[in-house]
Amino acid sequence: MKIKEIQVKEQLGATDIFFPIPAALIVCGTIENANIITIAWIGIAGSNPPIISISVKKSRFSLELIRKWGEFTVNIPSADYFKETDYCGIVSGKNTDKFTDTGLTPLKSKKINVPIIKECPYNLECKKVKEVEFGDYRVIFGEIVENHIDSDKIDKNNKEINIKKVNPLVYCARIREYWDLGEKIGNGFKAGKEILKNVKMDKP
Amino acid sequence: MKIKEIQVKEQLGATDIFFPIPAALIVCGTIENANIITIAWIGIAGSNPPIISISVKKSRFSLELIRKWGEFTVNIPSADYFKETDYCGIVSGKNTDKFTDTGLTPLKSKKINVPIIKECPYNLECKKVKEVEFGDYRVIFGEIVENHIDSDKIDKNNKEINIKKVNPLVYCARIREYWDLGEKIGNGFKAGKEILKNVKMDKP
Repeated sequence: MKIKEIQVKEQLGATDIFFPIPAALIVCGTIENANIITIAWIGIAGSNPPIISISVKKSRFSLELIRKWGEFTVNIPSADYFKETDYCGIVSGKNTDKFTDTGLTPLKSKKINVPIIKECPYNLECKKVKEVEFGDYRVIFGEIVENHIDSDKIDKNNKEINIKKVNPLVYCARIREYWDLGEKIGNGFKAGKEILKNVKMDKP
Repeated sequence: MKIKEIQVKEQLGATDIFFPIPAALIVCGTIENANIITIAWIGIAGSNPPIISISVKKSRFSLELIRKWGEFTVNIPSADYFKETDYCGIVSGKNTDKFTDTGLTPLKSKKINVPIIKECPYNLECKKVKEVEFGDYRVIFGEIVENHIDSDKIDKNNKEINIKKVNPLVYCARIREYWDLGEKIGNGFKAGKEILKNVKMDKP
């Protein structure tokens, strides 16, 4: 009897669908003329010094500003601000002031001349250090020079960031869906030790 | 009367704390000798062709394999596999076979010689195209040449990926917490239009 082959995976071709990722609000320009752009193609690239990378389409107004001024802030919105976040991704700052349109508040940064966003609970100040080109996108690497967290998002007991209070917006790209976080299910650098204790090796 | 200044933000210094991000399982090496490493510092870098970037510490065994063979797969684990995911991040493949240790199953890729992971609902096949150095990290850029999704994670009605069925693991770096997704709260490229309709501008 021929064994029936079960197709468990479907191929989607070569696509940029990726998840779960942040939908970060990038502020660029200057204190006086700041613009916001939503970037989901973002990630940490290095640790010492801390480096973040964002990928920006060449045609975007914000890319001009980042290249001109060499600084930007990364602002992680809470899930409550999904409409404002989406708005800053679909409209160009060439034609409008997105701070005014959304009601978001620019707040002075500590180390650079571009504001952070008050309503976003977590903020990074960044200085551009490198640029790499891929097709119609530019990858901008920024050194993280300062981080901010809302004081009321830090747990009084352990002085750690309380992610549930931050309530960060989660994005699933190409499928174009905004989600919030559910439940904490485990601790990094700990959960795996349950498997490790059953593995025999010379040194882990 | 002096207005009391309310301190709403606390500064954390320059750190690489970032969230919400994926905790992806990267497979490297060959079909015969494949290794798994967990990478949370990952993001899409370009669209046409689709490019992904992963940041790997120079000391990691997996970096050697990626540089030697020039190929890797990115596998998004479901939240159920948080222990296996964590394990692959804390143990070096120099000393053990992480497929054996975790029980994860290598599955033949379509276009490259490195396996994907069967238990991960979403998988990307990638070919290394560029490398950039930042301190003790290397950023590896890979062209995405194929994407796979579990057939049962695609909605029959609209043929779209059902994220709730995928149930992707979410990580919050440095705070070291694994989370799952909560609820869908909106649609990208749509939610912002509610703000747009109240904004007056020449062209959006």
